[in-house]
Amino acid sequence: MPISDALRRDLADIEVLEDPRMVRLKSRDFFWFSPVLKRALDDKRADLVVVPRDKAELMRVAASCARHRVPITVRGGGTGNYGQAVPLSGGVVLDMAKLDRMIWQKPGAGRFQAGARMLEIDRLLAPLAHELRFYPSTRQAATIGGFVAGGAAGAGSCTWGQISDPGAVLGVEVVTVEETPRLIELRGRDVLKVMHAYGVNGIITEVEVPLAPLHPWCERIAVFPSLAAAAKFAHVFTECDGIAKKLVTVFDPQIVPYLRRLMPYAQAGEAMAIVMVSEPQAEAFELLAADHGGRVTFRRSAEEAQQAAYGGGDMPPIYEFTWNHTTLHAIRVEPSITYLQLRFPPVVNLELVDWVAKRFENEVLLHLEFQRRFGKVTCSSLPLVRYTTDARLDAVMAELDAKGVAVSNPHTYVLDNAGWKRVDAPQAEFKRLADPHGLMNPGKLVDWRAEPLRATA
Amino acid sequence: MPISDALRRDLADIEVLEDPRMVRLKSRDFFWFSPVLKRALDDKRADLVVVPRDKAELMRVAASCARHRVPITVRGGGTGNYGQAVPLSGGVVLDMAKLDRMIWQKPGAGRFQAGARMLEIDRLLAPLAHELRFYPSTRQAATIGGFVAGGAAGAGSCTWGQISDPGAVLGVEVVTVEETPRLIELRGRDVLKVMHAYGVNGIITEVEVPLAPLHPWCERIAVFPSLAAAAKFAHVFTECDGIAKKLVTVFDPQIVPYLRRLMPYAQAGEAMAIVMVSEPQAEAFELLAADHGGRVTFRRSAEEAQQAAYGGGDMPPIYEFTWNHTTLHAIRVEPSITYLQLRFPPVVNLELVDWVAKRFENEVLLHLEFQRRFGKVTCSSLPLVRYTTDARLDAVMAELDAKGVAVSNPHTYVLDNAGWKRVDAPQAEFKRLADPHGLMNPGKLVDWRAEPLRATA
Repeated sequence: MPISDALRRDLADIEVLEDPRMVRLKSRDFFWFSPVLKRALDDKRADLVVVPRDKAELMRVAASCARHRVPITVRGGGTGNYGQAVPLSGGVVLDMAKLDRMIWQKPGAGRFQAGARMLEIDRLLAPLAHELRFYPSTRQAATIGGFVAGGAAGAGSCTWGQISDPGAVLGVEVVTVEETPRLIELRGRDVLKVMHAYGVNGIITEVEVPLAPLHPWCERIAVFPSLAAAAKFAHVFTECDGIAKKLVTVFDPQIVPYLRRLMPYAQAGEAMAIVMVSEPQAEAFELLAADHGGRVTFRRSAEEAQQAAYGGGDMPPIYEFTWNHTTLHAIRVEPSITYLQLRFPPVVNLELVDWVAKRFENEVLLHLEFQRRFGKVTCSSLPLVRYTTDARLDAVMAELDAKGVAVSNPHTYVLDNAGWKRVDAPQAEFKRLADPHGLMNPGKLVDWRAEPLRATA
Repeated sequence: MPISDALRRDLADIEVLEDPRMVRLKSRDFFWFSPVLKRALDDKRADLVVVPRDKAELMRVAASCARHRVPITVRGGGTGNYGQAVPLSGGVVLDMAKLDRMIWQKPGAGRFQAGARMLEIDRLLAPLAHELRFYPSTRQAATIGGFVAGGAAGAGSCTWGQISDPGAVLGVEVVTVEETPRLIELRGRDVLKVMHAYGVNGIITEVEVPLAPLHPWCERIAVFPSLAAAAKFAHVFTECDGIAKKLVTVFDPQIVPYLRRLMPYAQAGEAMAIVMVSEPQAEAFELLAADHGGRVTFRRSAEEAQQAAYGGGDMPPIYEFTWNHTTLHAIRVEPSITYLQLRFPPVVNLELVDWVAKRFENEVLLHLEFQRRFGKVTCSSLPLVRYTTDARLDAVMAELDAKGVAVSNPHTYVLDNAGWKRVDAPQAEFKRLADPHGLMNPGKLVDWRAEPLRATA
């Protein structure tokens, strides 16, 4: 669908990118972690990337796309893994990068423009002794709006749960894609309408979140004689209510060689735990690690860790080896590797971890992320998978699911198929209101016209 | 045991109190919540109260008591409930009130003299955007040293667990009671040696704790049609990892009339939940309360709540109706009331709450405090008991214990009998080291000479 001259005229004084390399770059995310998505999405391109400077320009873009019936795909940092920001039908990619201001901050909460990058938000908040509760391992590039629209968890989840938990997002401002766009403020549970919806039902322009008061997070790596020992430690450590922590990650011994920069910190066959803990409590962490047969091999102070996050020094911040960065590092070493997204049910999580490790010994390499889920400690997992065929990938997921391990399929770009990561909320209903012409990120929410628009919507 | 002239000479320039009314006052705590302890302790008195100005004076007191073999009982705010600070054998009461300085504060931790009152600590910390993780309902009078030596939990436990949890105390400085007193710094797990030990094994002079970054805690009361509904709400609310909270208390409908100031906020037969929640997340609390049939009847902003804590206005801070303040209010209305200390095991806690409420309908009135314990949400309880006889009290405790509800008997002043509140640590062993003459708070740790002093101690 070529972009009409009329649309170009409408956008005359708004920044657009048309250079094919830039358009290609801004039409992609990290979907290529999945061989399935790589095949499906590799050639998808926008016709035009539009970079509004402020909300007024953004509303003009929304109005123009509605008037000319041009598809519009909202893009944050482009750090998604399921093609959330890949335009399936061309049209406009709306780059939110310049809507990046902090609107306000007060004790315990802050409001930000959707395009604000999460690392930059934390840089602004640090002098105010606050920080974001969560960030993905892509903190440097990820935007707060993108995290709400396409993310779920990350560093911070060991304490705060997930971004879809009650109270974890206070408010979201959305611009509708209509000839005369409206600003809608969603608050309370209504925020779920647009959360994890990949931008199919309104342009998220502002996000209001509770903030965590700032802790001095230092970094530690401990190694253990086995995955089971590391996982047991990580579970008990996460259950220590009295130790303030930001990150608890565990790697099967087979994963460590893929993390080149971390290899010096483990011997062959050792499982690894990565932890960010409040600096005054690092000693309590070390005692507990020793109890579980652990050996601490890497220590970096909170100040050094913060410098690393802001780009100082050689060794990246340690969270850049965790969550889906683990997969990135592994693919760089062995391009045939892909991954899954699992959630182990609480109470029996360690038993199931053992079962998976044995059942899929050299095929599914467990990478665990310990977190709180509705008041209980458990682990989710982004295991590395030595990929062979799509059919085998499906068979592995089916077997895990049958055993009671919740699977969220990361090998689909369709929201309807995404399993437990899909927030159970009236996303389709809200789409009928906020995107009546069905222009937003078309093809991601397949089933949205199934129900008639209610008169009260 | 009359105080010798030699001791008086030793203490010549140190402040002492000898006025009988003052000595009586400083020889008591809130043991009279228990009819058993009231009988046992009502006539116990020190001979002399000594109020050292600094650590040098304190060490002179310790040396003198050792030299003259005078019993020494350390006193913080005197807010204990088991006679922790009551001298059973006369002698000196060592009043820590003047050792009340903040030694230092850094991000995530602080160190304080043991006599610093917890409200005053928080007043100092507030401009630094920090606060203590926990405080008892007696925050205004309670000292940090007393809390470590005789306390366990309080406001903050719904997030941070208990003061004896791993990492919850970083270090403790102790002065031994010997002719030449020594300063001993206990760190890591060694702090358990003197925790909840009622000051039988060394004078705690400094306490180093991890601090919580400051949240703006607002106050709310919600009422529910039944105890079961209120308890279910409180459990689910405490499990909401994404809602920052400081206090979650539930009262059986029968308790509300004892809390005169709160009576306007409930109708007859309604159960009450008291909550302190991070102000920006109050809306998330209200949604959840409504889900459970709750009605919010009292709202006070974080700023007003803080003013109330610092003595402004008519209505006390809301935490002064919770934890063992509930019992205090009830005894003022009905002097025959006493209380118990229960801990409900996780997972089945709500079932057991129902069982207790039915089994002891008008005799044991449930007051629940929801908290995290080793990564799981459960409730402890300080139920009001309509006291009849000691034998009946024992029978109730035995029946609760048999049913799987953990009982910590608050009707004994002997550490050895105190059940789960007694920290399982080598308190006796450390007593042989820190108090070789057995002068400290004699009679509280009965069994301490049972094992011989090890050469390595």
